[in-house]
Amino acid sequence: MSCCPTGLCAQPTKKEGRMPWHPPEHDGKDMPELYVNNSLNDGLDLFRPRQDRTVTWYTCGPTVYDACHMGHARAYLTFDILRRIMEDYFHFDLLYQVNITDVDDKIILRARQNKLIDDYTTGAVAKNDVAAVKEYINGAVTAKRAKLDEKVDTLSVALPESTGARELDARAEALEQAVFKSTQFKDIEEAVSKLQDSSSVPDLIAAGRDALADRLDSELGETVTDQKIYEDHARKWERAFHEDMEALGVREPDVITRVTEYVPKIVDFIQGIIDNGIAYESNGSVYFDTNSFKNKGFNYRKLKPGAETSAEEMAEGEGALASSGSEKKHPNDFALWKSSKPGEPSWESTWGPGRPGWHIECSVMASDIIGDNLDIHGGGADLMFPHHDNELAQSEAFHNCSQWANYFLHAGHLHIKGLKMSKSLKNFITIRQALAEHSPRQLRLMFLMQPWDKPMNYSDQTVDDARSKEKYFKNFFGAVKSVLRNDFVSEVQGWTDADRALWEFLNESQKKVHKALLDNFKTYDVLQYLVDLVQESNKYLSAQDKPKNILIKKVALFVTKILRVFGVVEGNDKIGFGSDGGEGGSKEEVAAPFVDAFVDFREKVRTAAKAKSAPVDFLKACDDVRDETLANLGIRVEDGADTSVWKMDDPEAIRKEVEEKRERAAEAAAKKMKGKMDKLEKDIQTAEKARLTTAELFKAGANADKWGSYDDEGKPLTTKAGEALSKSQQKSITKEIKGQDKAREKLIKAAGDQGIDAYIESLQKQLEELKVSP
Amino acid sequence: MSCCPTGLCAQPTKKEGRMPWHPPEHDGKDMPELYVNNSLNDGLDLFRPRQDRTVTWYTCGPTVYDACHMGHARAYLTFDILRRIMEDYFHFDLLYQVNITDVDDKIILRARQNKLIDDYTTGAVAKNDVAAVKEYINGAVTAKRAKLDEKVDTLSVALPESTGARELDARAEALEQAVFKSTQFKDIEEAVSKLQDSSSVPDLIAAGRDALADRLDSELGETVTDQKIYEDHARKWERAFHEDMEALGVREPDVITRVTEYVPKIVDFIQGIIDNGIAYESNGSVYFDTNSFKNKGFNYRKLKPGAETSAEEMAEGEGALASSGSEKKHPNDFALWKSSKPGEPSWESTWGPGRPGWHIECSVMASDIIGDNLDIHGGGADLMFPHHDNELAQSEAFHNCSQWANYFLHAGHLHIKGLKMSKSLKNFITIRQALAEHSPRQLRLMFLMQPWDKPMNYSDQTVDDARSKEKYFKNFFGAVKSVLRNDFVSEVQGWTDADRALWEFLNESQKKVHKALLDNFKTYDVLQYLVDLVQESNKYLSAQDKPKNILIKKVALFVTKILRVFGVVEGNDKIGFGSDGGEGGSKEEVAAPFVDAFVDFREKVRTAAKAKSAPVDFLKACDDVRDETLANLGIRVEDGADTSVWKMDDPEAIRKEVEEKRERAAEAAAKKMKGKMDKLEKDIQTAEKARLTTAELFKAGANADKWGSYDDEGKPLTTKAGEALSKSQQKSITKEIKGQDKAREKLIKAAGDQGIDAYIESLQKQLEELKVSP
Repeated sequence: MSCCPTGLCAQPTKKEGRMPWHPPEHDGKDMPELYVNNSLNDGLDLFRPRQDRTVTWYTCGPTVYDACHMGHARAYLTFDILRRIMEDYFHFDLLYQVNITDVDDKIILRARQNKLIDDYTTGAVAKNDVAAVKEYINGAVTAKRAKLDEKVDTLSVALPESTGARELDARAEALEQAVFKSTQFKDIEEAVSKLQDSSSVPDLIAAGRDALADRLDSELGETVTDQKIYEDHARKWERAFHEDMEALGVREPDVITRVTEYVPKIVDFIQGIIDNGIAYESNGSVYFDTNSFKNKGFNYRKLKPGAETSAEEMAEGEGALASSGSEKKHPNDFALWKSSKPGEPSWESTWGPGRPGWHIECSVMASDIIGDNLDIHGGGADLMFPHHDNELAQSEAFHNCSQWANYFLHAGHLHIKGLKMSKSLKNFITIRQALAEHSPRQLRLMFLMQPWDKPMNYSDQTVDDARSKEKYFKNFFGAVKSVLRNDFVSEVQGWTDADRALWEFLNESQKKVHKALLDNFKTYDVLQYLVDLVQESNKYLSAQDKPKNILIKKVALFVTKILRVFGVVEGNDKIGFGSDGGEGGSKEEVAAPFVDAFVDFREKVRTAAKAKSAPVDFLKACDDVRDETLANLGIRVEDGADTSVWKMDDPEAIRKEVEEKRERAAEAAAKKMKGKMDKLEKDIQTAEKARLTTAELFKAGANADKWGSYDDEGKPLTTKAGEALSKSQQKSITKEIKGQDKAREKLIKAAGDQGIDAYIESLQKQLEELKVSP
Repeated sequence: MSCCPTGLCAQPTKKEGRMPWHPPEHDGKDMPELYVNNSLNDGLDLFRPRQDRTVTWYTCGPTVYDACHMGHARAYLTFDILRRIMEDYFHFDLLYQVNITDVDDKIILRARQNKLIDDYTTGAVAKNDVAAVKEYINGAVTAKRAKLDEKVDTLSVALPESTGARELDARAEALEQAVFKSTQFKDIEEAVSKLQDSSSVPDLIAAGRDALADRLDSELGETVTDQKIYEDHARKWERAFHEDMEALGVREPDVITRVTEYVPKIVDFIQGIIDNGIAYESNGSVYFDTNSFKNKGFNYRKLKPGAETSAEEMAEGEGALASSGSEKKHPNDFALWKSSKPGEPSWESTWGPGRPGWHIECSVMASDIIGDNLDIHGGGADLMFPHHDNELAQSEAFHNCSQWANYFLHAGHLHIKGLKMSKSLKNFITIRQALAEHSPRQLRLMFLMQPWDKPMNYSDQTVDDARSKEKYFKNFFGAVKSVLRNDFVSEVQGWTDADRALWEFLNESQKKVHKALLDNFKTYDVLQYLVDLVQESNKYLSAQDKPKNILIKKVALFVTKILRVFGVVEGNDKIGFGSDGGEGGSKEEVAAPFVDAFVDFREKVRTAAKAKSAPVDFLKACDDVRDETLANLGIRVEDGADTSVWKMDDPEAIRKEVEEKRERAAEAAAKKMKGKMDKLEKDIQTAEKARLTTAELFKAGANADKWGSYDDEGKPLTTKAGEALSKSQQKSITKEIKGQDKAREKLIKAAGDQGIDAYIESLQKQLEELKVSP
């Protein structure tokens, strides 16, 4: 066998207690000096991709049988962070593959039991015979109790004195879990017992569901023959997984592979291992021949060297529906292909109907997409053995090479309030539950504050720490933006000592951040450097009368840039130009609530100002903001009687409208003025005429040479020609005198106390004033 | 002299026809293999920073005497692109300095002439004597014509046969420009001649402005003594420069230095060169001694070696207001300090009043901020000689080192429709004119499509090319977004051959892009690779029935990422978390002007309401809009004494703060109420006691059984036991009566007209009311 099919590996190194490792050949040029914790060597190795900057990376995806919990988040969010640093900071060209395990004993059991319980619930017995239901469920509870007790008994038998420490630990843990499960089952027994007098079938079924599922499955499991229920179950939780990942802001893999879509290739791959003499068929199943593998010079258990496989590890790897061990040549051999029993989904194969073993899926899918040598393989720490070691063995056996994956990264465990989190312990928190309490950003910050490869604790304390970091950064960004609204051009430029000191602090921080990223992705150190930098900047801001805009902006941009790389700040997952309103709503959509609020407020002030006859300044402010500020922002405010509406438009167009409105207003004002002056002139004329006595009336002006003689009061007696007045002339004169009397009376009233002279004078004065007004 | 003061340079290399160059020492680890066109070697050199990833970079900024034209854009936008690649792609930690030349002959002349023309226009002659104006302007035109003709004549004299090719070229170009100017002046002469019959002074002044400015300046220039006009002129165009840069999306420098703020340091620097024996004072000016510099072993003319300084180059370097050459030891010597004549701004110095020479500014400011060795010096190609060579000489003379700048980058020229662009040719397009026709993104794409270090042409064709590239990308982004709206979970996963082929094309493109960026920032190649990738993706999209969402998204994200690095896509200049936030022109950015306006308006109303003691409703409206409307929009308004600032934050957080504030206010109110009630109760008690007469005082309450007998007024005579009162008892009683009299008097005064009963009753009523109030 070659070092690896590509021949790109250097001579192997060998760390004490580890298997040989082949570092990829590289001249080191144009490459970051990135060190990663490589589980193959249980320590830091210099990372070198095989080919240019391309990094092929396979991460073990979920078995989709239930909702994702925070343990999943620990793995996928952690790798998302590492991946973003590799892609967005170091600009490696990643090919990032994640699989979906959609056929597995856990899925089979869960889907089959769900179906059997549904059938039972809607079935005849449950509908008609409460007593029968009670009896059936009681029987189920008794059987389950017996099974649990047996398990505890079995695990309580002392192991031989020669047993190694690891196996002893594993046994102790298994026993602990069995006892815990047994204790938990007491709750179910009590609940079912309490319901013995009840006649509610749904309540009974709900209370005894776990035991009922076991009994139904053992009695009727084989009758479930519709493969679609397995597919539907898997598809449902696969979708939930993707939704959870999206909610957490985890970047999609570059390629997703589903086991059920890979069965023919899996069969071929297994045949290849058989052909290489490292696997054998037994009773319709195929097993990996661990002894043959080792005899051919391969290294088995690279990740967990120096120990035998414990019974518990084997059980975990082989699944709840595994055949008995008697089919194997050696107890450490593991299934590549599992013969399917009735009630289990199956595919045709050379060895009869069956389904793939767990480990083989990953070997086949990763080999198919990436090939015979991976740069990186990732997964949760709990998968190290047996899953990952067996996966390596299978792949190396198939490709006949000594190193299939060059770097193996394992995300550390997640503990809940100090306790190990596991489904069997039922202390797990689903991702959705966590997201109901904390924002994705807070969760991500929490993960960033932990070493990615060490166990971490999920507690109120860790979340609070993340939240306070978030707040700290938020306040800083707010403070900087507030400073940036100042006009920097009008200030003195250059650097004061304080400016220079801040730049130097920034520069040191930049170096430290870069080094921490190179040093096994020490994001927790990076966050601390950023916090220190913010602290220094806050000091600078509070001490400086005139902080330098461009300098403080530079600091904020750097902090933002690193947080963006970490996925804490949006940006790197956006497609397109962005500013055309393509994303996140058009400008109008985004601005609408602000403008709505503004206009509402303005309207409120306006109404108040009108109602309380407050100083006119308020109204003027309202008009100004409409015709200047808002118009320049491209907002046209249309004032109605009670409310105002606004529309977005070209500022130029709105300004033009305002101009026209102003011109119209000016015209109207001019017209009004003209009317006023005309009226005054007319009033003066009328008054001048009304003030005349009867005598003056017929002797003055146009009448002067119309009459010949007058009586004592000045009323005409004859015409100019000396003729007596006609009847109609006399009538007209009488009418005129009457009219004049009335007009004079009106004038006297209008003039009031000031008298007629002063009144007319005042009218003339008003007219003069209007004439000279602008 | 050492290689450089830091000693970080390796042994010098020597390219044919170039001066020796010292490559910075570097082990090459963790460094991109970036090659740049280094003008010091007129070719590609491997770029290595001196210290970690820190890159100090000084770029020659504008002389702020007029609007920026596209030639400025060519330099600053080009360097912005290079800088973004260095900062955002290679993650170098830049210290990017740009200066503002705000004292210069061009500024002096422009500001002085503007002032003289303004004075002339508003002056007595212009107002009263049209004939005099005509005569004056005609005289100005004649003088200017003579000057232009003389210049052409001088430049037409043949040069000696021994003249080198470069000098011949320079002479030919100068002559061409002189002829062009002379031709242009014909337009002015014609315009002025046409107006001989007009009596419009403003028309005359406008037509002959150029010639008039020359005449006024030569006759009256010396009378302009107010330095503020130079400062105002410079400040106006400095602001316009920053506005233009912002409009183009050019990232702000990290530090800006203004010449006028550096004069004392310039004086010291010049003294340093004199002390090193490489400069001399002559007639109040100081000159750089080029011969002494060369004799001491320094290299002069590193950027343009092998030629003598032409008269034109010298004239350009020394400025229009330079002294005659007779002050210099050698014609190639250039001014470090220019003695100022009347009408020129001046600062005090060892050598008398004067101002800095052009080249010295950059040496001093760059040395002050960055120090005795720069990683990069940038500038337009037209500045290579004399400006940059002289700057290098000065700095090396001062620091006594052989290499001040390690890499010199020169942005290529910009031609307008094939012709050289220059102010004297008047074919220049201002940045604002260009932006009125094309978007900043289109202009940037146009620059990206050119080699940064070669001459480029600005024409309809180049802009159309950029526009079509923009459209091409935009269509692609739209198509991808449309595909991404499909549900990918319900589809088959894994890779088809077409999927794999597309990934391989992407991977190849990624490698090519990376290599092109390393190869002297070949952005035009990068754009072509992106276009090819988009083309391939479009083919894939149209051929596939079910394109893979996550794969096509990966392609679009890569294209976006590179365009974001180039500054074509928004993102890298955003501060903060963003999602509070939004996208695509972050929500904050979009909303900011609206909110600014809103808050300003609100502040105006608030101030008015406070000042005019208007009904409290106005203030309440202001508070409500802050605590409700704006808080719910995620805007925290912090009211100061005179102004308010606002910050965007999580609405929940703001609402919580408001709630807390309200609780505190409620507590304070409750406390105040309690104090009021306590006081009322005390007042009532006091009043009840104060109203007692002397008789009542000693017979009532606690005193009732203390005494045996009383006198007529009710004053005690004996104790209960019948004993006579002691001296001290009598004294105490007298004191008590006196005190009671005073208290009663006070009570009567407080009760006023209403009388004591009503007064006490009113206090009780107030107390009752407070007790039942909410």
